[in-house]
Amino acid sequence: MPPFIPPLSDPTKTVPALLSERALVSFSVESLTQFLHGETLIPQRRIRALLEQDPVFSNADKPFLSREKMYVRSLEKAAKLVEMRKRNEWSEEDMMVAMRMIGDSTPQILHEALFIPTLKTQLSDEQQKIWLPNYAQTELAHGSNLRKLETTATFIPETDEFEINTPTLNSMKWWPGALAQTSTHCAIYARLILHGKDYGVHPFLLQIRAPVTHAPMPGIELGNLGNKIGFNTIDNGFLRVHNVRIPRSQMMMRNSKVTREGKYEPAKNAKMNYSTMVAIRANIVRNAGFALGQALTIAIRYSMVRLQGGDRIPSLKGEEVKIIDHGMQRFRLTTSLALSYAMLMTGRLMFEMHRRNLKNVIQGEVGLMAEVHATSSGLKALTSDLATAHMEDARRACGGHGYSWCGGIVDILTTTLQDVTVEGENTILHLQTSRWLLKTILAALKTKDLSAVPAGLRPALQDAHILDQERATIVPGQPVSGETLIAAFWHREARVLQEVVARILKDGAGEEAMAKSQVRMVELSRTHGEGMLVRNFFEALAKEEQTLVSKGQNPTKGFLPVLKQLAELHAIHRLLEQAGDFTEDGYVSRRQVVWLRERREELIDGLRYEIIGLVDAYDLSDNQLNSAIGRYDGRVYESLYEWAKYGMSIMEKGSQGGVLGFDEVLKDVLAEGRRINGVVVAPKL
Amino acid sequence: MPPFIPPLSDPTKTVPALLSERALVSFSVESLTQFLHGETLIPQRRIRALLEQDPVFSNADKPFLSREKMYVRSLEKAAKLVEMRKRNEWSEEDMMVAMRMIGDSTPQILHEALFIPTLKTQLSDEQQKIWLPNYAQTELAHGSNLRKLETTATFIPETDEFEINTPTLNSMKWWPGALAQTSTHCAIYARLILHGKDYGVHPFLLQIRAPVTHAPMPGIELGNLGNKIGFNTIDNGFLRVHNVRIPRSQMMMRNSKVTREGKYEPAKNAKMNYSTMVAIRANIVRNAGFALGQALTIAIRYSMVRLQGGDRIPSLKGEEVKIIDHGMQRFRLTTSLALSYAMLMTGRLMFEMHRRNLKNVIQGEVGLMAEVHATSSGLKALTSDLATAHMEDARRACGGHGYSWCGGIVDILTTTLQDVTVEGENTILHLQTSRWLLKTILAALKTKDLSAVPAGLRPALQDAHILDQERATIVPGQPVSGETLIAAFWHREARVLQEVVARILKDGAGEEAMAKSQVRMVELSRTHGEGMLVRNFFEALAKEEQTLVSKGQNPTKGFLPVLKQLAELHAIHRLLEQAGDFTEDGYVSRRQVVWLRERREELIDGLRYEIIGLVDAYDLSDNQLNSAIGRYDGRVYESLYEWAKYGMSIMEKGSQGGVLGFDEVLKDVLAEGRRINGVVVAPKL
Repeated sequence: MPPFIPPLSDPTKTVPALLSERALVSFSVESLTQFLHGETLIPQRRIRALLEQDPVFSNADKPFLSREKMYVRSLEKAAKLVEMRKRNEWSEEDMMVAMRMIGDSTPQILHEALFIPTLKTQLSDEQQKIWLPNYAQTELAHGSNLRKLETTATFIPETDEFEINTPTLNSMKWWPGALAQTSTHCAIYARLILHGKDYGVHPFLLQIRAPVTHAPMPGIELGNLGNKIGFNTIDNGFLRVHNVRIPRSQMMMRNSKVTREGKYEPAKNAKMNYSTMVAIRANIVRNAGFALGQALTIAIRYSMVRLQGGDRIPSLKGEEVKIIDHGMQRFRLTTSLALSYAMLMTGRLMFEMHRRNLKNVIQGEVGLMAEVHATSSGLKALTSDLATAHMEDARRACGGHGYSWCGGIVDILTTTLQDVTVEGENTILHLQTSRWLLKTILAALKTKDLSAVPAGLRPALQDAHILDQERATIVPGQPVSGETLIAAFWHREARVLQEVVARILKDGAGEEAMAKSQVRMVELSRTHGEGMLVRNFFEALAKEEQTLVSKGQNPTKGFLPVLKQLAELHAIHRLLEQAGDFTEDGYVSRRQVVWLRERREELIDGLRYEIIGLVDAYDLSDNQLNSAIGRYDGRVYESLYEWAKYGMSIMEKGSQGGVLGFDEVLKDVLAEGRRINGVVVAPKL
Repeated sequence: MPPFIPPLSDPTKTVPALLSERALVSFSVESLTQFLHGETLIPQRRIRALLEQDPVFSNADKPFLSREKMYVRSLEKAAKLVEMRKRNEWSEEDMMVAMRMIGDSTPQILHEALFIPTLKTQLSDEQQKIWLPNYAQTELAHGSNLRKLETTATFIPETDEFEINTPTLNSMKWWPGALAQTSTHCAIYARLILHGKDYGVHPFLLQIRAPVTHAPMPGIELGNLGNKIGFNTIDNGFLRVHNVRIPRSQMMMRNSKVTREGKYEPAKNAKMNYSTMVAIRANIVRNAGFALGQALTIAIRYSMVRLQGGDRIPSLKGEEVKIIDHGMQRFRLTTSLALSYAMLMTGRLMFEMHRRNLKNVIQGEVGLMAEVHATSSGLKALTSDLATAHMEDARRACGGHGYSWCGGIVDILTTTLQDVTVEGENTILHLQTSRWLLKTILAALKTKDLSAVPAGLRPALQDAHILDQERATIVPGQPVSGETLIAAFWHREARVLQEVVARILKDGAGEEAMAKSQVRMVELSRTHGEGMLVRNFFEALAKEEQTLVSKGQNPTKGFLPVLKQLAELHAIHRLLEQAGDFTEDGYVSRRQVVWLRERREELIDGLRYEIIGLVDAYDLSDNQLNSAIGRYDGRVYESLYEWAKYGMSIMEKGSQGGVLGFDEVLKDVLAEGRRINGVVVAPKL
């Protein structure tokens, strides 16, 4: 096992640059950490401390491994997790926490393959739906469009079995994680064929590998997709099935059922599936916030240790400055930090919404479902887009060291990049949100009943001219209130909506009209999501303020005033980034744009000595960060050097024990060079 | 050697979807290819045809290799190139072409290490400056700031030697390509110390490895940095030097010199270095265009083969549609295509500018130099930012297959990502451009002599109110002329400039003022570069029109009208993407924004059946693309499947010949699972 190399941070050896930064933070980082993580903080820390005693969980070797070796290491980590779970009697929730705390991805499906009987009998309905489906759904030529899947499960009444087939090359299952090498069973999505009639796509449990030998079962072909841009610990694979029989009982019958006679019984509560999707997407939103937070922890700490430039500034007398003190660097990282917090707050509120909604659904009330589901779609798309874009920006802000795996951002960035595609491709999700919004509005316009329309959009629907009269109430030299900013985002959304509705109505208001307006519809969903991020941030802080007041604490002290500045910064920055949407109808004037820019600058300057606290509060350990430049103690350069030397010690060697390639190729090339050019030792210039 | 797998495209087997697309293109793709590549097209094709007969140049294995094996393969390719060069009597230029045509990166430095004597005697001055410097410059804790490098070269008069030292951990050389394992010599940048006096940083030739054994020379420590996000064929490394003596003749004395007595003779024509930088940056601009073109060739071909969605559109009767026919997909890819062509046209004009300027410089006229150099800085930054952002967008537009290496975009994207950092980090370059622009303007305002100010900015400097009166002349339902669009970008630049100048003047107009305005200065450089891209595209087409007319050809036929549409689309799209800058002062009105959006849509629709021709014209071979989904014949799915199977055949195996990890870890875990849960074969649900 690799040691924890470079040695984990020793807080007593923290570099002076970070010590002095931390001394200036105005709030208790621990309080903010508790606020961000809530009740999961204690188990997170307990479990992480346990994990980080065992070198199997060291991520130090990851920057140097091949895909094959990454996979082996992820298996080792998975195996150890299983062992620790048993030894420590972890709950299912503890296990989930552990998988988050290791700072790496393991084939969880392995876990499912081991424990399917346990899972089936012990997990709640909801957990089963989160963890069992999704395997072996996507086909080679078919993505998110379930209706077009070609795999079949044909009922054979004589033997009470289904016969599974992937009849064409294009219907081969393609992409499922852990399918290529790890899994013994999978849930396969196939068209249910009963007495020649197609009942649509349903999930079936399929054994794909034999016990002991692990060889593919008869009729099963399995394979590996090869390297990906990231997530290479996981063996994404393909699966072809040729005439494989399974007992009828292996259809997953929690929802729809097939009787012994081959009679179809449709699902009773299909809405539950939507509720699950909301939870998964809320998770992606929250992950987007933390993944960006991880990149920013690295980039901000590094920017406080790294010195560069400043030669031209006479007052510095030739001293180099921390790169965080270059205006552009501070601007990029502080605005990204505001975005990360906005996403965390929205993730938090989405979970609350999901829990409320789930309670309703269980009681048979599905009124909120469509809105909640549609909103979660667009937010998943918006936040995964924004998070990955800003993570990439943070990577670039680290210069060359950001390009290297030992910088630490590469791994988390390339892993998070899958979130723009999985669980619903982002463009398709935006279109879902927009379609829901437009249908709601078109129906409301017809019936004059606006109750289903989001409140902020109602005034403009009641009076079309109201948007032309509205003006933002931004004045110079003052903070911009949450109300003002929220109103601006509602105005913008209503304006985009007005244009899109006019277009759709002109084109006949049907699906063809919507298909013609995709670009603007995606824009509409984005504006909807941007508004949510802005509102939710302010709302979450208002709630926390109430909580503090009810506990008798002073809300004008501590982290809350700092987060309020961050919320204002987030809203102003998002507005300025899309200023055209706000200025094109004169809602925000040219002078107001200038004032907003000044206010943004003021906020960024005001947050200058808080930002180290804001990233420390994410509470990410050195092993989770796995970064030479983002470590807690700031010993960047020693760490880069030590880590590179360790990496060399585990590189694959050549036949003579030297660097792979030297004896094999380079030696002869160099010899030939010497033969042609003479010995090039100490050439005379 | 790997076969060319999947087999290279067979045009006679092209899928019907691409055949029908190609049949509809209105112009000769071959003519456009000739226009894009100019006189290099013939050698490019000749050399590529030679290379692609030899499986050593197959890139088919690359998606599956570890870093160590990628390096070995790159050595094999480099060795073969050297051999072919000799056999085919390639010129230096042919060799450069060959390195571009292999669709992979080899350690060119190997080539230099072999042929330094040849290079030194045979290359022109300019070529020497392009290919010799840049090695061993960056230090661990010091990036672009040459002045802060700590490595020393101290003259020892007694022995006529220099003693080289990297005195601290932070001054260790860090990052040079091919330094870790390949190079035998390097050019090391060190502070020249003569009789105790520091003369600043100069380059020295240093032997780092012994002949035959390839072991580091005494006093030399070398190492490898580990994996990077891309470019892993190249062994970026580090270098520490402890008291290493070299003869005085190993100082590189083409510019500054040191005599036997230790007397310093400064360089005579330092401006030449700037001219070289312009050439390198023009190359990055052009590469940005082609790299984005490579990603778009893949994404656009794939989007014409891939079917998805359309279920909701009644007129389609359940048929799936090519994803290019989804409005959002077409929008993303067509606007990116316009950007790629804009960058190619600007790269072309920059090379012309560079050649003109170089001629001037040689004749002692350096008047243009500052502008040309500053402009090239900002353009390098702008185009590398935009190209990589749009390449990533193209990758996402390919869904899951874009995430996989076999999709082909991952490799070119992660390789191109280094361009935002190397040859001047982008933020620093933008600031250089802005500083030059501001200094020019501030001087002109003082002297009232505007001759050094770019022409489009002069009117606003002569009369500050002119910007408030200007209005864009965009009318509905008509094409927007190049003049109108160029004027809009000048207006925007003048407006940003006005604000920045006011700010800087208010703050004292010195370096401290500029340091305080970094964010807006970067913005200023971006607007400057955006304007150049817009103007250059129209200008390059106007030139081509003249050329065609002078040859007696009809410029209203062929590719020229199509490229004109693309130039209009590019300018309109860039304007709309930053609409706030154009609408905040009312220069572009709200109605005009709507008309521009309509015109953009019209242009995208009009180009629908040209885009396959526009990407085919880049003339990239299947082996260069190295993509299962972007191949010329469109056989996407067969190729993905065949390629994955080939990849499995070269994966690293476990001790028992199976998948690495099964015998080592997974077997025991699964056995333990069976022991705990019983055999999970065919569980009854």
